[in-house]
Amino acid sequence: MFHLPETFMGVPAGLPGPGCRVAVLGVPFDCGTHPFHIGARQGPTEVRRQSRLIRRYHPTLADLDVLALMGVVDCGDVVLTPGRIEDALPRIEAAAGAVLDRGAIPVGIGGDGSVSLPLMRAAARRHPGLVALHIDSHTDAYPYTADDRYNAATQFTNAAEEGLVDASSSWHVGVRGFTYCSGVLDHAQGLGFRVVTAEDLLRRGFAQTMAEFRDAVAGRPVYLCWDMDVFDPSVAPGVCTPTWGGLSAREGIALMRTLTDLNIVGADFNTVSPPHDVQGMAAHLCAHMMMEVMVLLARQAGHLP
Amino acid sequence: MFHLPETFMGVPAGLPGPGCRVAVLGVPFDCGTHPFHIGARQGPTEVRRQSRLIRRYHPTLADLDVLALMGVVDCGDVVLTPGRIEDALPRIEAAAGAVLDRGAIPVGIGGDGSVSLPLMRAAARRHPGLVALHIDSHTDAYPYTADDRYNAATQFTNAAEEGLVDASSSWHVGVRGFTYCSGVLDHAQGLGFRVVTAEDLLRRGFAQTMAEFRDAVAGRPVYLCWDMDVFDPSVAPGVCTPTWGGLSAREGIALMRTLTDLNIVGADFNTVSPPHDVQGMAAHLCAHMMMEVMVLLARQAGHLP
Amino acid sequence: MFHLPETFMGVPAGLPGPGCRVAVLGVPFDCGTHPFHIGARQGPTEVRRQSRLIRRYHPTLADLDVLALMGVVDCGDVVLTPGRIEDALPRIEAAAGAVLDRGAIPVGIGGDGSVSLPLMRAAARRHPGLVALHIDSHTDAYPYTADDRYNAATQFTNAAEEGLVDASSSWHVGVRGFTYCSGVLDHAQGLGFRVVTAEDLLRRGFAQTMAEFRDAVAGRPVYLCWDMDVFDPSVAPGVCTPTWGGLSAREGIALMRTLTDLNIVGADFNTVSPPHDVQGMAAHLCAHMMMEVMVLLARQAGHLP
Amino acid sequence: MFHLPETFMGVPAGLPGPGCRVAVLGVPFDCGTHPFHIGARQGPTEVRRQSRLIRRYHPTLADLDVLALMGVVDCGDVVLTPGRIEDALPRIEAAAGAVLDRGAIPVGIGGDGSVSLPLMRAAARRHPGLVALHIDSHTDAYPYTADDRYNAATQFTNAAEEGLVDASSSWHVGVRGFTYCSGVLDHAQGLGFRVVTAEDLLRRGFAQTMAEFRDAVAGRPVYLCWDMDVFDPSVAPGVCTPTWGGLSAREGIALMRTLTDLNIVGADFNTVSPPHDVQGMAAHLCAHMMMEVMVLLARQAGHLP
Amino acid sequence: MFHLPETFMGVPAGLPGPGCRVAVLGVPFDCGTHPFHIGARQGPTEVRRQSRLIRRYHPTLADLDVLALMGVVDCGDVVLTPGRIEDALPRIEAAAGAVLDRGAIPVGIGGDGSVSLPLMRAAARRHPGLVALHIDSHTDAYPYTADDRYNAATQFTNAAEEGLVDASSSWHVGVRGFTYCSGVLDHAQGLGFRVVTAEDLLRRGFAQTMAEFRDAVAGRPVYLCWDMDVFDPSVAPGVCTPTWGGLSAREGIALMRTLTDLNIVGADFNTVSPPHDVQGMAAHLCAHMMMEVMVLLARQAGHLP
Amino acid sequence: MFHLPETFMGVPAGLPGPGCRVAVLGVPFDCGTHPFHIGARQGPTEVRRQSRLIRRYHPTLADLDVLALMGVVDCGDVVLTPGRIEDALPRIEAAAGAVLDRGAIPVGIGGDGSVSLPLMRAAARRHPGLVALHIDSHTDAYPYTADDRYNAATQFTNAAEEGLVDASSSWHVGVRGFTYCSGVLDHAQGLGFRVVTAEDLLRRGFAQTMAEFRDAVAGRPVYLCWDMDVFDPSVAPGVCTPTWGGLSAREGIALMRTLTDLNIVGADFNTVSPPHDVQGMAAHLCAHMMMEVMVLLARQAGHLP
Repeated sequence: MFHLPETFMGVPAGLPGPGCRVAVLGVPFDCGTHPFHIGARQGPTEVRRQSRLIRRYHPTLADLDVLALMGVVDCGDVVLTPGRIEDALPRIEAAAGAVLDRGAIPVGIGGDGSVSLPLMRAAARRHPGLVALHIDSHTDAYPYTADDRYNAATQFTNAAEEGLVDASSSWHVGVRGFTYCSGVLDHAQGLGFRVVTAEDLLRRGFAQTMAEFRDAVAGRPVYLCWDMDVFDPSVAPGVCTPTWGGLSAREGIALMRTLTDLNIVGADFNTVSPPHDVQGMAAHLCAHMMMEVMVLLARQAGHLP
Repeated sequence: MFHLPETFMGVPAGLPGPGCRVAVLGVPFDCGTHPFHIGARQGPTEVRRQSRLIRRYHPTLADLDVLALMGVVDCGDVVLTPGRIEDALPRIEAAAGAVLDRGAIPVGIGGDGSVSLPLMRAAARRHPGLVALHIDSHTDAYPYTADDRYNAATQFTNAAEEGLVDASSSWHVGVRGFTYCSGVLDHAQGLGFRVVTAEDLLRRGFAQTMAEFRDAVAGRPVYLCWDMDVFDPSVAPGVCTPTWGGLSAREGIALMRTLTDLNIVGADFNTVSPPHDVQGMAAHLCAHMMMEVMVLLARQAGHLP
Repeated sequence: MFHLPETFMGVPAGLPGPGCRVAVLGVPFDCGTHPFHIGARQGPTEVRRQSRLIRRYHPTLADLDVLALMGVVDCGDVVLTPGRIEDALPRIEAAAGAVLDRGAIPVGIGGDGSVSLPLMRAAARRHPGLVALHIDSHTDAYPYTADDRYNAATQFTNAAEEGLVDASSSWHVGVRGFTYCSGVLDHAQGLGFRVVTAEDLLRRGFAQTMAEFRDAVAGRPVYLCWDMDVFDPSVAPGVCTPTWGGLSAREGIALMRTLTDLNIVGADFNTVSPPHDVQGMAAHLCAHMMMEVMVLLARQAGHLP
Repeated sequence: MFHLPETFMGVPAGLPGPGCRVAVLGVPFDCGTHPFHIGARQGPTEVRRQSRLIRRYHPTLADLDVLALMGVVDCGDVVLTPGRIEDALPRIEAAAGAVLDRGAIPVGIGGDGSVSLPLMRAAARRHPGLVALHIDSHTDAYPYTADDRYNAATQFTNAAEEGLVDASSSWHVGVRGFTYCSGVLDHAQGLGFRVVTAEDLLRRGFAQTMAEFRDAVAGRPVYLCWDMDVFDPSVAPGVCTPTWGGLSAREGIALMRTLTDLNIVGADFNTVSPPHDVQGMAAHLCAHMMMEVMVLLARQAGHLP
Repeated sequence: MFHLPETFMGVPAGLPGPGCRVAVLGVPFDCGTHPFHIGARQGPTEVRRQSRLIRRYHPTLADLDVLALMGVVDCGDVVLTPGRIEDALPRIEAAAGAVLDRGAIPVGIGGDGSVSLPLMRAAARRHPGLVALHIDSHTDAYPYTADDRYNAATQFTNAAEEGLVDASSSWHVGVRGFTYCSGVLDHAQGLGFRVVTAEDLLRRGFAQTMAEFRDAVAGRPVYLCWDMDVFDPSVAPGVCTPTWGGLSAREGIALMRTLTDLNIVGADFNTVSPPHDVQGMAAHLCAHMMMEVMVLLARQAGHLP
Repeated sequence: MFHLPETFMGVPAGLPGPGCRVAVLGVPFDCGTHPFHIGARQGPTEVRRQSRLIRRYHPTLADLDVLALMGVVDCGDVVLTPGRIEDALPRIEAAAGAVLDRGAIPVGIGGDGSVSLPLMRAAARRHPGLVALHIDSHTDAYPYTADDRYNAATQFTNAAEEGLVDASSSWHVGVRGFTYCSGVLDHAQGLGFRVVTAEDLLRRGFAQTMAEFRDAVAGRPVYLCWDMDVFDPSVAPGVCTPTWGGLSAREGIALMRTLTDLNIVGADFNTVSPPHDVQGMAAHLCAHMMMEVMVLLARQAGHLP
């Protein structure tokens, strides 16, 4: 008689139960210190709202009710205060851990990029040998200063230093654009990461690039971190750090569809910043990409050919 | 660990249980035939989103947690298809009936004004002698044609003709502005309704006008229907039929606070039309007015002096 | 079978014919030199678009089809190039003259305030002894320099100097706010005009102020120039020179309704600037005020009691 | 002296007369039942408004005044009530029929996709053997239920079943994205239609795909239905069902320019939904595509080499 | 030959020099932890941008070039990182101190309300016996917890506890609306403050209320803190904590004009949050109020009668 | 302690001094006569505001602080009145001349395209044999009439006729779309210009096209004029004359990066029209392109390999 209030694509609200393989969780957090654009804390709400426009079937990709097959649920939003990162990190980790402990793959909706660190902590603790696949126009493996260790530019620096991910097998894909300090690629590579620039990616092609990644990780657990600013601002205007020259929607979808035959154990989609968005475009595209990942996960689970 | 996805002011989701005196229900319906402005179907979602900005305590009005005292829950949205009114009417009535049967007062979030008819049907069936208090810049007691009986201008015509409300004790308050046909006030009065124009209301004053209503209904069950277009478009731009010259927010709040010592058994707030709104202003004000009615209901229940 | 494309409130398109007493004409002109906000050239289009939301009847004011009684037509837009004022002035005057010569009262939709000068020229030529009633937060009777005589701040300076209006009987009503040069009121008064500040107007009351004007003009032909910036920016955000502290919509409507028992022979509503508006609010209010003036003109013509 | 109020690119208003080969007609209709995005009823108005930005000549494509050569007129909007589809269908058909009977090709501006059914009815009655060329990200040849036969997803189902078009020669071009039920392509193909997915179209190329269509239809009368959601939402955000991964503007224009050597007898452009648009982008692009089709029709008429 | 890039109303950029009595300084800071609306860090930029619409003269208030008479300069923005309050507080204090030490009155543009604390620290150190006049819909004298002492709800709690202001002579004026905890007024009064609710203020009148304040402070140095959310959201939508039922622009201006015969030694205008604003309305009104305070300061300095 | 108010990317404000090689100057001018879209006068302010989102380093392009190496300053805005072109032309020329005379390369921020004429005049006077490279979807070398010689479609007609640039070596690159008169390409070519249409450019490739230009100009001084409408409206919606089918951001960036080994002596970026923009996208992209040109100029100066 009633729809529950606004979950992702209308899936049931609640923690994972029997038969649930995937759980969406909102992480309404931003660091509070980005100098100009801020507001990714409103991301989960807006992505859910826009997800009403996404449908369940795809005639050539997956003409099945993937959400039902995977028993997808929406846990709601992690309880935290945006801007207080020391306090938020353990809360986010615990929330993702609760999802993982119930046998489901967590799919986070950010929040800015800093939310990936606690999500990777939760995944790493349960999946040793975790590898990160980071799709982003930035490496987010920047150097930090003593009093500013945790922010939205250092989550992969910390992930490497904490040993959460095997940096030597982890890739940053789609990097491009200007940066606020110099030496950014060197720093990421110094931590062991492989950096694939947008230029490289487009020159070599998505399929070939990702085939190489697939071969390299060979079945190891993968954490997929998708920063929506890998898209061009014309496609996803409402992000934390819009950077011109990014992927079109068609390219982003094509890139996602090459991520087959992996063992994804956790994922997040981050940096949708609704106050800087335009008619919910970035959030709408984020919801679309989340549905694409649902198809990937269903294929990974054997529900699709 | 998790907030549930976006309920009204964060109250628990679900049907009324023990201790619940009030239940919010969304009615994402609009008639589909308004010639230009349409989209009130998005109202419940946006009102819930804006309700995040509303707080629970009021230092001089009610310095208590009214939502907790009344055990307010949010049932979610009635399952229906906007635009199909014949199909939607019984669904809305059944949903409101379920709330009433569990001992709670339903507070609907529209949706356009047509949603009030099934809500009044549900209330009337359980509260004989129901009286309507309709705050609106229109009477919504217009004449209808045979093939267009149910729409957002006739819910009070039908309510009178179906005997849901005692028209002779029911008031339309705040009526003003141009109309699409002539004879509108005569028609409402011909059905037995009392019409208080905005001009009358402002001249006589809110307190005195409402005191007269209170004396007239003398404890009988009251259905409160609050159309957000009673406010001026500068205050509530995103409504179905914006009409210049309406109440300011301060006036609307003052008017609401005069509605004491009544026996309100059901209520709805309607016509918020998010596609025509501005930064969620009409929805935000609607959420505020809903919190004001929560205070009224708590006072009516004896929780406040 | 077809509606004509977008006329004011759907009235017939075309020049006045027999039985037509009022003709709407768009004047899509702005001076091109306002330093920051520009775009009033889009005013006529947007006011017509928003006029769809205005209805024809008013239960307590005029429960008749005033537009039909007055045979209102919409002539369309004067053909001109915005920004070229020397070229535009005679074109606008000729267009208004054509309306007047066909026996109709022209009601212009601006455009910025500069459009009133040619409209007054046309009226003055046909109505000797013309008096101006200018409702505006500015006098628009500023001093000019030799190479900048015609702009949106000098139309009443020129009207006085050209003898189009009898300045000593003409009033500027609602003046308030900061100005870009000093001595503005003195200059207007030096030209003979009466200036009623917003403060005066509110202190003395609309009815009494306008009764005094009515007595003073005693049946002489009146040109009504209504600048939408007399409203507060919260009510009419999209105007050329938004000025805080203006009239509410209710006050503006009340002021208009006091303009009875005059002999209005021409009118315009100006300064709606759609690129700076919010969901068409200023244009919508302008359309409402134009419908109010239609009622005034119908009353003046004896169609209403 | 006057421009007529806002016609498409300023062409004369009125029904086709002698020398008129093409007539624009607005169809301000949407079904009223789309669950979330609604408002395509405002499409014709906004497309006309944005058409002001479109110019008449094209230095390399058609350096002639195509609109004059073809005597294009704008009939205005069909008189109907949005949301009442049973009532609207015959009205739209009659309006298009009147255009056709006067020797002009109707070019409709929707409204949602449902408006194509009555437009095809009118064309089919006068052009036996009609073939449809449907450019859209959806087939709109979905199954229907008994009580919901006519909507914006079934117009081609009905067109096939009513025999309006020869489904076996009619193509749906550009299909992509998720759908609300499964089996969508099978259903369209079961009706006899050819479905060219966006993936196929891009792989094979526009020119080659359309050459094949041209060869297949060999001079038979063609109805061109262009759903603006074939474009990516970054290009045309304000559509009824935005679907990521669509055509860029450059691709859409290139696709249109391959549609030569056909015998187009009617066309429509649909699903522009202004309340969900961004600065009129979708409407502006729609106006551009309409000008492109004018060039096509002029070429078809022999006015261009 | 050049205008300097965008200063407040075009005044010279730079630190106060000889003849400068007032200096504007931007404080682009917000706490980073407000749960939903954030972005006041963009306030100074937007207020300066909107200040282009404000003029220098006022025919009845001050028909002189007040900005020139007072030698107003714009220092630019304090260099700081939004969200890091411990780091920002001394920077803001030092910046305001530099202004004060050069003999000018600092007029800050926030930023959220937390910026007032360091501004009051700077003023208090140079003006013993400082009194605060706080115009706001909230007291911002809330209780704090050990780990959250400094935020946008506690600046007056800290000001009292640090002895920066004489709480027993300091007033909070315009308080209204719901609060996130109970006991808010008691807490402020427990610190010694006088709280004048909006209801009290409107009932007693601005002039009488402020006369009482003036008598009480009797020439002591006053810090004026004006939170833009004292205005209604219809007037100032883009603020941190919009609260319905606030002042109209006309009322706010009238209130400001009663603040004569005081000894204002510092001021700030805060909480303009551009990402949540509508066409810059809140920022535009803030710029207007700043011009009003310039007039007050010029009167205080003897430049006006 | 203070940031200066809003300069381009925070560079110092002021005229070029020793060590300064590049100076940004705003030209807040538009002609005032474009028939519908107007407002490019607000361009410089908005481009500066959006430039906050641009960073200084680029890991693969120029991992150095280019702005510091080149001593970039921001002169502010030329003092002029938009809409008065005869008056503005000499002012803009003098301002650019002052920059050139101090040994810096002027980089103008428009304003509409008409601002390029005086900028070229200043450059031509100091750099005989100047060649123009004009990236635009229009030639802006249209014919003019006697009373409308100077506008935003004729700056290159005048530049050729005044002998400012060697038309026979100057190129218009990226031309596409409909025009308001016929014969536009012929006219440009008749003046001696080379016209490279967007179609040609994309077919031949950016690198090869620009290599041919580079070979042809062989070290002669080049004036680079970049009209932002060369981008597609989906990428840069807020421009004076949006034209569908333009470059993506990635293409525009790639095109810019081919402009190496030239001797650029002046540049401007024009037609950003903020009132028609969407969340500052066109201005943001303009700021990005300006940073790209800074890299080009640094490379030209030998600071980069």
